Amino acid sequence: MRIDELGEFGLIDRLAARLGQGDESVVVGIGDDAAVLQYASNMQVVTTTDMLVEGVHFRRDTIDDRSLGYRSLAVSISDIAAMGGRAKHAVISLAIPVDLEVERLEELYIGVQEICTEYGTYVVGGDVVKTTGPFVISVTVLGEVECGRALLRSGARPGDLIFLTGTAGGSAAGLDLLLHGQGIELAIEQKSDLLRFHQRPAPQILAGRLLQAGGCTSANDVSDGVSSELHEISKQSGVKLVVEAEQIPLHDSVRAYAALRGRDPLEWALFGGEDYQLIGTIDPAMQEQIKARFAEAGVEFTIIGQVEAGAGVTLMQDGVGRELPAKGFNHFGS
Amino acid sequence: MRIDELGEFGLIDRLAARLGQGDESVVVGIGDDAAVLQYASNMQVVTTTDMLVEGVHFRRDTIDDRSLGYRSLAVSISDIAAMGGRAKHAVISLAIPVDLEVERLEELYIGVQEICTEYGTYVVGGDVVKTTGPFVISVTVLGEVECGRALLRSGARPGDLIFLTGTAGGSAAGLDLLLHGQGIELAIEQKSDLLRFHQRPAPQILAGRLLQAGGCTSANDVSDGVSSELHEISKQSGVKLVVEAEQIPLHDSVRAYAALRGRDPLEWALFGGEDYQLIGTIDPAMQEQIKARFAEAGVEFTIIGQVEAGAGVTLMQDGVGRELPAKGFNHFGS
Repeated sequence: MRIDELGEFGLIDRLAARLGQGDESVVVGIGDDAAVLQYASNMQVVTTTDMLVEGVHFRRDTIDDRSLGYRSLAVSISDIAAMGGRAKHAVISLAIPVDLEVERLEELYIGVQEICTEYGTYVVGGDVVKTTGPFVISVTVLGEVECGRALLRSGARPGDLIFLTGTAGGSAAGLDLLLHGQGIELAIEQKSDLLRFHQRPAPQILAGRLLQAGGCTSANDVSDGVSSELHEISKQSGVKLVVEAEQIPLHDSVRAYAALRGRDPLEWALFGGEDYQLIGTIDPAMQEQIKARFAEAGVEFTIIGQVEAGAGVTLMQDGVGRELPAKGFNHFGS
Repeated sequence: MRIDELGEFGLIDRLAARLGQGDESVVVGIGDDAAVLQYASNMQVVTTTDMLVEGVHFRRDTIDDRSLGYRSLAVSISDIAAMGGRAKHAVISLAIPVDLEVERLEELYIGVQEICTEYGTYVVGGDVVKTTGPFVISVTVLGEVECGRALLRSGARPGDLIFLTGTAGGSAAGLDLLLHGQGIELAIEQKSDLLRFHQRPAPQILAGRLLQAGGCTSANDVSDGVSSELHEISKQSGVKLVVEAEQIPLHDSVRAYAALRGRDPLEWALFGGEDYQLIGTIDPAMQEQIKARFAEAGVEFTIIGQVEAGAGVTLMQDGVGRELPAKGFNHFGS
């Protein structure tokens, strides 16, 4: 169906019908001038926003609409995770090319609702407008974190240990598979792993909550690659970060695909980004306690290096250290 | 300067430098994964979002960049006003054509900071991305309102009176002047009024606070024209709204320009929109008290009709009633 057959308000009704109604935290949801939200008095509000542009952040040949909806919220929910919070509410704005079909948007909202159900997040508002350019999705997520307990980038101290949740490089491997993987004989389960890493990244809210329980001195989510994220922590904490190449966890499917492609999977981990795992630093005195928390919750947690006095990010590989560049995905980079 | 000379992070630094730092409500502002905000325990969080697309919502020949920045926040702050709240925090995302000059964005942010200073609002985050299409601005504003005291669209009851703050039609008149006003001999002060109505609309936060103090049964901001806004209240409250044409307040400059253009200024008021005044209903028993509050604050407040049992919106003119259509600006309208 063409969107101009529905009109703006018909479209909003149709998309809103795909969404959940909210819990007691949603006092007023979609349908008034603004949404009204109830947060507990011991909580601070955490907010983050991301904009995705067709042709820049996603392509129709590398992601289906449902996964796109899922992923669009995942990138912002991940930022809430990196603060140690819970993602409670979202507003979504769409700039829609006039020839886009309503059914594509409905698929998108099925994906949105899938991730909202998983994370206990409610869509409470948004805006739909037309554009003469590419499809644009703008998402703002609101969450909550215990007062004064947000995980920042600025608390790493010399002597701390560097951690990473899950594995890195999977999203870049998945994108590579979509763009260049024709004819490569990877097992179907392994292909499926890589596509999932790229199209349906899992924001690490649970890991953030486990870290927020104590002992974490800094945290970032891996949106621009391990190297770029470590540089941000290094800069904001005023410390040097030293990571061991062999300790950086890579998924077996990523290793297998890299071998077939003749690529170094570590490059995907360091500079690929979009894994949406958490990376950061912990107090070494809390190491065993934190590891036990993660083991009990069944969440992968790996120590990959340590913090020293100084500046920058060093990768140790075969006993040799090299300075890692801060590069990652950079809009407007030359 | 070209944006690719600065890069993404250089651009963010440059734009952030135009903005204020925040007060004690901003625990963590721009520069981490997410912002952390402190709201009082007796307050609920109010949030709204708007997206503006060049060529659809604004044109370079009808608004300068500084006014565009001002206006982009005004439309969302106005939604907070219509809930009776205060606008406390904003996040702004930009999809930027790669050939746009950095100086234009800096001008935009000067306008953003101007309205933020006026309303005690702080920009706490955002995103900048590139696009192959038109310039897109996406704004989400967070505000606060006393628990359970938000002004909704759904509370109008038969017997209530319909109010409008300020005057209507000014923005449509201003846009008409910009597009078709060449050679029309309007006084310079009157031209200036019309341009201000269109380019620098004033969100009615103070009016919303005065209404929120008691006696208001429903409220909307006038973004799509008086007729469309009244239809929303009619629909959500399940009542009939009857407005008196002669009571709808029009600014002298709007009347003067309409006369020169041979147009009916009432049409601009009813169907033009973008005035960002508040419209709604009050309890008749509270009429004098509310009028006194507005008079003391120096805010224009006019009773323009009354609520009856039934449905729809009727305009009384010269003793004859006619049903007003719900039309206003409709994206994707055919």
